[in-house]
Amino acid sequence: MAIHHFQPTVYHTAIGAHEPVLHIDSGDTVFTTTVDNAGYDATDTQVTPGGNPQTGPFYIESAEPGDTLAVHFDRIVPNRKIGRAATVVAPNVLDPHYVASEMPQGGGAEWHVDVEAWTATLVSPETQLGKLTLPLEPMVGCFGVAPPRGQAISTATSATHGGNMDYRGFQEGVTVYFPIFVPGALFHLGDGHAVQGDGEIVGTGIEISFDVQFTVEVRKGKSINWPRAENSDYILAAGNARPLHQAVQHATTELLKWLDELGLEKRAAHILLGQAVEYDMGNVFDPAYTMVCKIKKSILQDIGLLPTDEH
Amino acid sequence: MAIHHFQPTVYHTAIGAHEPVLHIDSGDTVFTTTVDNAGYDATDTQVTPGGNPQTGPFYIESAEPGDTLAVHFDRIVPNRKIGRAATVVAPNVLDPHYVASEMPQGGGAEWHVDVEAWTATLVSPETQLGKLTLPLEPMVGCFGVAPPRGQAISTATSATHGGNMDYRGFQEGVTVYFPIFVPGALFHLGDGHAVQGDGEIVGTGIEISFDVQFTVEVRKGKSINWPRAENSDYILAAGNARPLHQAVQHATTELLKWLDELGLEKRAAHILLGQAVEYDMGNVFDPAYTMVCKIKKSILQDIGLLPTDEH
Amino acid sequence: MAIHHFQPTVYHTAIGAHEPVLHIDSGDTVFTTTVDNAGYDATDTQVTPGGNPQTGPFYIESAEPGDTLAVHFDRIVPNRKIGRAATVVAPNVLDPHYVASEMPQGGGAEWHVDVEAWTATLVSPETQLGKLTLPLEPMVGCFGVAPPRGQAISTATSATHGGNMDYRGFQEGVTVYFPIFVPGALFHLGDGHAVQGDGEIVGTGIEISFDVQFTVEVRKGKSINWPRAENSDYILAAGNARPLHQAVQHATTELLKWLDELGLEKRAAHILLGQAVEYDMGNVFDPAYTMVCKIKKSILQDIGLLPTDEH
Amino acid sequence: MAIHHFQPTVYHTAIGAHEPVLHIDSGDTVFTTTVDNAGYDATDTQVTPGGNPQTGPFYIESAEPGDTLAVHFDRIVPNRKIGRAATVVAPNVLDPHYVASEMPQGGGAEWHVDVEAWTATLVSPETQLGKLTLPLEPMVGCFGVAPPRGQAISTATSATHGGNMDYRGFQEGVTVYFPIFVPGALFHLGDGHAVQGDGEIVGTGIEISFDVQFTVEVRKGKSINWPRAENSDYILAAGNARPLHQAVQHATTELLKWLDELGLEKRAAHILLGQAVEYDMGNVFDPAYTMVCKIKKSILQDIGLLPTDEH
Repeated sequence: MAIHHFQPTVYHTAIGAHEPVLHIDSGDTVFTTTVDNAGYDATDTQVTPGGNPQTGPFYIESAEPGDTLAVHFDRIVPNRKIGRAATVVAPNVLDPHYVASEMPQGGGAEWHVDVEAWTATLVSPETQLGKLTLPLEPMVGCFGVAPPRGQAISTATSATHGGNMDYRGFQEGVTVYFPIFVPGALFHLGDGHAVQGDGEIVGTGIEISFDVQFTVEVRKGKSINWPRAENSDYILAAGNARPLHQAVQHATTELLKWLDELGLEKRAAHILLGQAVEYDMGNVFDPAYTMVCKIKKSILQDIGLLPTDEH
Repeated sequence: MAIHHFQPTVYHTAIGAHEPVLHIDSGDTVFTTTVDNAGYDATDTQVTPGGNPQTGPFYIESAEPGDTLAVHFDRIVPNRKIGRAATVVAPNVLDPHYVASEMPQGGGAEWHVDVEAWTATLVSPETQLGKLTLPLEPMVGCFGVAPPRGQAISTATSATHGGNMDYRGFQEGVTVYFPIFVPGALFHLGDGHAVQGDGEIVGTGIEISFDVQFTVEVRKGKSINWPRAENSDYILAAGNARPLHQAVQHATTELLKWLDELGLEKRAAHILLGQAVEYDMGNVFDPAYTMVCKIKKSILQDIGLLPTDEH
Repeated sequence: MAIHHFQPTVYHTAIGAHEPVLHIDSGDTVFTTTVDNAGYDATDTQVTPGGNPQTGPFYIESAEPGDTLAVHFDRIVPNRKIGRAATVVAPNVLDPHYVASEMPQGGGAEWHVDVEAWTATLVSPETQLGKLTLPLEPMVGCFGVAPPRGQAISTATSATHGGNMDYRGFQEGVTVYFPIFVPGALFHLGDGHAVQGDGEIVGTGIEISFDVQFTVEVRKGKSINWPRAENSDYILAAGNARPLHQAVQHATTELLKWLDELGLEKRAAHILLGQAVEYDMGNVFDPAYTMVCKIKKSILQDIGLLPTDEH
Repeated sequence: MAIHHFQPTVYHTAIGAHEPVLHIDSGDTVFTTTVDNAGYDATDTQVTPGGNPQTGPFYIESAEPGDTLAVHFDRIVPNRKIGRAATVVAPNVLDPHYVASEMPQGGGAEWHVDVEAWTATLVSPETQLGKLTLPLEPMVGCFGVAPPRGQAISTATSATHGGNMDYRGFQEGVTVYFPIFVPGALFHLGDGHAVQGDGEIVGTGIEISFDVQFTVEVRKGKSINWPRAENSDYILAAGNARPLHQAVQHATTELLKWLDELGLEKRAAHILLGQAVEYDMGNVFDPAYTMVCKIKKSILQDIGLLPTDEH
């Protein structure tokens, strides 16, 4: 249960079997920082090339292929006042005929991020939106473990190992589970967003550097196929693929697998999901899209599948 | 502002230019009923063949092609105690390898619907779910207007004219807008669900007959491309297409069109959606899938695009 | 085996249960004409609104739901000298980023069609292509039978009933098979192309009016799910759907069904297709795309599945 | 113009910046071998784990990011007598309802490959196909260069760098062009097929080890976005993506780029493709699918875009 304070000096724009920056044990907690999508740190200085540079990888001592890594986000909070965002909805998210004739000019937007007021306020460009102010919803856009088969996968995309999922539900308080493909798991994280619309449809959230505190735990001998997570209200599975419907297939199949592991017979699981399943949409901008399939913990408690006190 | 009480005797399983069952005026309110997806009425008697049979069509007097029809659901409530549902997640929603080897047995489920307690309780089959009880969320699965080009489109699917969208947000209190393609608009409705999970992934909600009260209004000279809606909290646009991502494209483009009509310059609209858009998933079972793109009215009020008192 | 000469006076832009223009018997041959996609006839006079207007429907006397209709194209030949084409590749066929920035101007092209020389020569606009001359390959773009469930389906799209498939293989000499959904089958045809690239990626071929001779035959009690065809070299199945991969699924599954009907055990059929299947791409412009799955007759003869003399 | 004889001892199942096995110059020719998809060599001995193990990478001396690598397949020929294939059409290629109920048993097939007779003959299992004999069409299934951004990409899939495209047109005599992302290009190749149906729909061709002779050439300062190729009759571009339609978009856009480089104005290029484009389908089994967009060289010669003697 050690606590580590780690200040990164190297970053990676592909998630793979890079040299670990720190060896930690299952149960340990790490305090660290992430730079923004363009490589700018808490002082708004570019310290590494852009492209969702990742802090890490962290080597977790007992982690072996076939185990599962649990990562709990104890605290994720912006550590500077300026956030930046793209401003044009991506062409792949719009009707081709709109794209052919109606796209506005590009350029960047700046937002003032105030962690006291817990708000982000549009600073520029000047538009009818004026000083539009939105509540903060800090989330980690891109994080995951080294993929299988000796691969190193760009932080522009996502797969079974996690990656650039840009799901608004990956907030403080969530526990995320990853399949482990290599010894040590090799956990990476980066790409913090102060705020983000569903789908990250302009290709960015309000991009900003973060202070992060996370705690890891290795679940020995427990094997999963896709990233999963739980928060106080839901258990959920994330599918990452193109087309979008395939992400639905992966997420739904993985949630069925989870219900099976919890001891629910298959026929009951199908009936349950039919009337009680919920879906959230992650990224629809990247090479692989993300869909989340989830179910309320309270329902699983009602049928005795989860202990009530876990709620 | 007349009030009509209409008891249907014929039903249609394609939405098209059928003989109107009633002529009404813009502003009128209709009290009527719908049978369930299999053609069973409030007495649980089959009165017409199955396949989402529709009540209607209703001819609205001043409606002309190029106008918009607003339909407000004043009241939609189950009018019998038994609801039925399919029990197996559809193969197109699951990983092909799961489908090849792990599908459970089919069969139907019965649910007891109690509008006093506002609950649906699983009656059969007997499974680990026991007497699982879910809160009612009555919604209309399939409704719309006659499509363009002399078409009659199966109530198994959806398109610009509406149809089988199976979106949980089409509840009591919502106002839905349809493009009008033929004189009189020819509004149809049916396929009520007492409860439904996102995506209607088993191919049904808890299917049941409804008492319905709705009020129509023709917006002359106002032209839209896809179904839209608003409730107390959101304005939203629905895209209906395969693949799922194309539904995202239609819905997002239509919401941009709406913001443009409200007077928001394009560049501002893109910036706004980037950080504040939300998506819901309708049907992923039917030939055309449904995605909903929405934004909070409170944000549009903050930037002066909607009057505050409309909230 | 009667021969009919039929000159159309009405046309339809949806395929459905319209009033038959002629009643014929199984085995009969019809000589008729089709107008071009814009409703222009052999004299280049517009006689009906555009949108792939169809000649027909022809009512075939013994045809009943569950039977199959065979249509043999005895002769399909342009009957005027001018053909017209669109000139810009459709936005849905190009990368979104290309569409956002690089689309050329639109406008129409005219081609001189010479059935003596069997060529089409570009007349306008003037470009680096000069008087580009291509060999004729006359084909019928849109044809089919009335769909199920009382539907009328736009001639802009396609489904199990056929429709706007725009497949280059639907040429003179081919026999096409359709599932029959309504009494009389109600066969429609139109949308002739003098030449067309794969995919109809500009949204048109070289559009022109046709003289057509076709012969029908009803296969009683034989039920198919998707359009099929055969020519001297191949048997083939067409799948019509979005996304494109779903069209592959339908076509492949239907060819497996055909091989099963020919008496090939399933395991052998899968092995055979694995190493000998071929695919062609039909339309990728319309709401539903078309893919064709085919296999050489000579291989089926080698394994005794087809008689050798049929080759 | 040196000639190298290289016998591999290490293989890779991801394409990336691995240690080069040989440094060669632009213009050089290499004689080498590839093992089959399962790592079996010319003696049918497993020398490396399976998964499309690649021979290489070959470092080409002058190759720099932004250049193009041309690889000409001088000779690709099976070097043993036994080939193996999977036997069941992949679930993602079939209708979900077929997959749920009609899939045959799996298992492997063996084929006798005779390079004298230039045939492959089915040896086992015993089915109605008997000793089905198909003509050889040797092709390289998986080959390419190190991808950008420090990635290593599994040989199960494909992208801009090439990879597992399984396109029947990648035969002896073709010249394939790749974008270069890293110094030396780092060319890999493997996964030879004696025969393969379109789409590799059972997940394999007739898998076999190869003797390969290839010649490389670096095109300095010439930048392409996707793999291209030419043979005696066609120029072509390959798009690798899911969904299948996105592969069409990439391939079509890349062919337009090529026509632009050849000096054809955009408007002319669109008109030309509209009536003369052709498409072939590569892999529809892997995580990324492949579509090929091509045009006849003879047409480009007719309009003066290619020299006639190049035909």
